[in-house]
Amino acid sequence: MPHWPASSKLDAADTLIRHDPGLTGYSGWVRHEELAEKECAIARTWAVIGERWTMMILRECFRGVRRFEDVQAKLQLGRNILTDRLKLLVHEGVLERRPYQERPRRYEYVLTQKGEDLYPVLLAMLRWGNRYKVDDPPLQLMHKNCGHMLESVTVCDSCKEEVHRQDLRAYFTADAW
Amino acid sequence: MPHWPASSKLDAADTLIRHDPGLTGYSGWVRHEELAEKECAIARTWAVIGERWTMMILRECFRGVRRFEDVQAKLQLGRNILTDRLKLLVHEGVLERRPYQERPRRYEYVLTQKGEDLYPVLLAMLRWGNRYKVDDPPLQLMHKNCGHMLESVTVCDSCKEEVHRQDLRAYFTADAW
Repeated sequence: MPHWPASSKLDAADTLIRHDPGLTGYSGWVRHEELAEKECAIARTWAVIGERWTMMILRECFRGVRRFEDVQAKLQLGRNILTDRLKLLVHEGVLERRPYQERPRRYEYVLTQKGEDLYPVLLAMLRWGNRYKVDDPPLQLMHKNCGHMLESVTVCDSCKEEVHRQDLRAYFTADAW
Repeated sequence: MPHWPASSKLDAADTLIRHDPGLTGYSGWVRHEELAEKECAIARTWAVIGERWTMMILRECFRGVRRFEDVQAKLQLGRNILTDRLKLLVHEGVLERRPYQERPRRYEYVLTQKGEDLYPVLLAMLRWGNRYKVDDPPLQLMHKNCGHMLESVTVCDSCKEEVHRQDLRAYFTADAW
């Protein structure tokens, strides 16, 4: 009987094989795209927004920019990347591609309600970035309803208290990933 | 005088040159890594979390997983990718790398307060994913303080009303990106 080294590297490989031998198609690793099929709302969301540049493109959309050339000129990202990301966002129903001109036909990209509902993700990023990544916030938002500069907070919709991780208990379905 | 075609492709290239000729180092495009230097809290945040897999790795951290092998076995992502992402998250102060064993010395990765404060980003993703990307949420969170299943909402800390994009007015500093 061979001696197996108690290497955690081996253990991990073992887990890998037991898990899902045929899933990935190469070398046993999960591809990022496969997150879309996992039984996890975060994984599936990340499969939509978790590529380089995607949230920056959505930042532009939330600012009202709608045209490929305008997003590209502002962000100065590679055109092939922008094409690819817009395609996914349209496919996912986050953006709608609408003609705004005939001869030649040109399209603009407009946030759907599903896209609009990603705004809290952006707000949470903005809050974190304002706190940790900049000295003077280059962007501040005024909440017109109350006239205060916005400090956004994530609360529980039932009791309206701010949500802290340690106050939560997780319940998973049997097939959750 | 040459005739310039009124191609928006050319316009974009022109904008590009006027903007920032020396910044990128190759072919005029901005590299994703350069988001870290932009005068924008969202760009700088995205430079920390906006790589493939990063939020999935943080999902594991928020679930209490601390060891390289455990994250790797669960997510089944390439080891080089995981190494790379952990390195960035440690460098950014989102995770702290702590020894938990001598001979051989082994490390675990623990969320700092700065990392903990990214939880609202995850909650916003979870909310969106539960609404749009799964039929039966594989994960539900119970808010122990009030006993209700959590529906998280982003509110204004001043007036406690839910934040909607159309209720905000943006103020940018002169150097904002």
